[in-house]
Amino acid sequence: MANDTRGLGTVPGTAIWRLERAFDLECGQRIGAVDVAYEQYGTLNAAGDNALLVCHALSGGAHAAGLHEGAAKPGWWDVLIGPGRAFDTHRYCVICINVLGSCYGTTGPASIDPSTGRVYGSRFPDVTIADMVRVQKALLDRLGVRRLAAVAGGSMGGMQALVWPVLYPDVVDRVIALAATDRHSPQQIAFGEIARRAVIADPAWRGGDYYGRGNPAAGLAVARMLGHVTYLADAGMARKFGRRVKGQGVTAGTTRRQFEVEAYLDHQGRSFVGRFDANSLLTLTRALDDFDLGAGFASLSDAFLETEAAFLLLTFSSDWLYPPYQLARVADALRQAGRPVTYQELRTDYGHDAFLLEHEAQAPIIRTFLDEKQERLADGIAAIRQPWKGQGPWPAAI
Amino acid sequence: MANDTRGLGTVPGTAIWRLERAFDLECGQRIGAVDVAYEQYGTLNAAGDNALLVCHALSGGAHAAGLHEGAAKPGWWDVLIGPGRAFDTHRYCVICINVLGSCYGTTGPASIDPSTGRVYGSRFPDVTIADMVRVQKALLDRLGVRRLAAVAGGSMGGMQALVWPVLYPDVVDRVIALAATDRHSPQQIAFGEIARRAVIADPAWRGGDYYGRGNPAAGLAVARMLGHVTYLADAGMARKFGRRVKGQGVTAGTTRRQFEVEAYLDHQGRSFVGRFDANSLLTLTRALDDFDLGAGFASLSDAFLETEAAFLLLTFSSDWLYPPYQLARVADALRQAGRPVTYQELRTDYGHDAFLLEHEAQAPIIRTFLDEKQERLADGIAAIRQPWKGQGPWPAAI
Repeated sequence: MANDTRGLGTVPGTAIWRLERAFDLECGQRIGAVDVAYEQYGTLNAAGDNALLVCHALSGGAHAAGLHEGAAKPGWWDVLIGPGRAFDTHRYCVICINVLGSCYGTTGPASIDPSTGRVYGSRFPDVTIADMVRVQKALLDRLGVRRLAAVAGGSMGGMQALVWPVLYPDVVDRVIALAATDRHSPQQIAFGEIARRAVIADPAWRGGDYYGRGNPAAGLAVARMLGHVTYLADAGMARKFGRRVKGQGVTAGTTRRQFEVEAYLDHQGRSFVGRFDANSLLTLTRALDDFDLGAGFASLSDAFLETEAAFLLLTFSSDWLYPPYQLARVADALRQAGRPVTYQELRTDYGHDAFLLEHEAQAPIIRTFLDEKQERLADGIAAIRQPWKGQGPWPAAI
Repeated sequence: MANDTRGLGTVPGTAIWRLERAFDLECGQRIGAVDVAYEQYGTLNAAGDNALLVCHALSGGAHAAGLHEGAAKPGWWDVLIGPGRAFDTHRYCVICINVLGSCYGTTGPASIDPSTGRVYGSRFPDVTIADMVRVQKALLDRLGVRRLAAVAGGSMGGMQALVWPVLYPDVVDRVIALAATDRHSPQQIAFGEIARRAVIADPAWRGGDYYGRGNPAAGLAVARMLGHVTYLADAGMARKFGRRVKGQGVTAGTTRRQFEVEAYLDHQGRSFVGRFDANSLLTLTRALDDFDLGAGFASLSDAFLETEAAFLLLTFSSDWLYPPYQLARVADALRQAGRPVTYQELRTDYGHDAFLLEHEAQAPIIRTFLDEKQERLADGIAAIRQPWKGQGPWPAAI
């Protein structure tokens, strides 16, 4: 991407804005001044209505596009963001904000609690997806954003994108949610809980107050290894790894052959320990598991009644962590609410990771959706070919 | 089952036979006298040809049917074994043998190494599915078994069932494999490796030499929780747990609401720690991950060329740990080898666990298969409605 002339090239580092007032969380607790890390690509127009918010997933951050000085890898959604790209920075002011509870600049468990001068650690409160969105709104207000031309994200970012028009119906024009859901299923909760238990089982976690002594490396690595399996798909793994042997690996004190997939997971686990805070993993997976967009309404459909946005929902055929039926269920609820929605299931063997990898398939769909006039968007309802019934597979649109 | 008049009622405890000679393993190592735990239901006939071997899965043992004195729960496949049941003990001498490397009576890592007088622990060698089968064969020879009327098993037991006719082609009349595979995929290896890493990450594992100090409880519980998620299915979990909250649970030092699925997994993890040896989990999951039935042959089909058995292969539509395409691939290989095979995919939302739960659907299929005359079994090839191509879903037979 570094040599891609359409890319943003080098971008400034992540900025930090401090929300100086106390912030009330859904759980009832209040936290002191909140730092909010963000990046901005493109220019906000005078009307403040060309902002396009991209929301990151569990382990992402505000660095969504371009290269930081001296970095080898661009931001996590660089392939879609830049001049002439699907999220066109000639046209939109693209903004990405690190979520509350994370560890990439925005306040989270590893931050200093201004009321005590000590690291939050085990005292960091539960946060929700809606809390994350409300912090984002505070920053966008500060930046002068009046309307969101679009809010887009995959996985946990897709859930934020769905919450935005529900919380702020008159602010959001378009919603793009990929590989997400309106609520975590028991299977998704189970994977979250196992990841948390892997962390907590590590004595180095020390009840959450391990700061200064290093991440609970062994447990956090296991949690991340599990995460990675859920991000891939059976067929894609067969293609990528097969049963190839990497060489001799030392596990459990004995030297034996190590399959390539085992070496891959080992690498993913180790590198995660060096870059992500274990308590943030606990905080964010809890927020995901607690997420239930329709919970405060008579039905999921009712949650969307006040929204004024058009929705584009993209799923991926081999994504078994966020199976297509989940956003298909959202599409059905939107249709019932009379909201314009386009739902498409893309065929891929990349699994959940596809939302980051299948950009060539996504880009034209996103472009079309962003270019569509409002009156045409209402026709999007027709793109829902049939109402979704139960948990069976949704017919692929492509 | 205790009140089921067709059941076996109270059965004697598990018997132990000692194979007094050294046993050469596939890995090249030799282990001393090997204990072999087994149970037998029904009577072996004079010809020694009415034996029916049932093979257990990862965490199972020799106690397949009937009630042990004072026990509340019958053996693991009681619903299929007994007078008049699918594995009819009026007709067959049903035998179940705890596998090598396990911890229910047969020699495993928790056993005393006769050559040192100390627990094997970290010194227990790698074993393979074929090693397990060869130990079973030694016991069956000792018991006077001349032919196996059938060998049957699900999951790891199904892999043993597939190995039997390949290793001993002139001994096996029928093979019944459920929810199994000819080789572990990288996704299956990944789940195995994560379970192992969860155990190894626990300092209480102590390099495998924890005996006398108790199982590495925290890590083994995480491994088992992961196992249980892979044994269930998304739709079945939604039906069983939904997003219901069990109550307040203490995790990570804080009291918060606990979903029912979290409480279920917690219970499964805890109870497993009390009944299964952590090193056996490492040993058996390695044997599963190493399993590749066709590896020593030009093709999987070639592995079956010498077999004389008829095959019944049953899979379960929602089993994503051992997806139907895997035994469908075996069925295709058998068909190419000209072997009689019946393949059926049963619709269920029980996931991998279905091989233990869907007995009402299985029983008539198994009965029909066992009753079929040999000349009719050859027609079983016709039951393969179309050759399996690639990794797509196999058309359901029922």
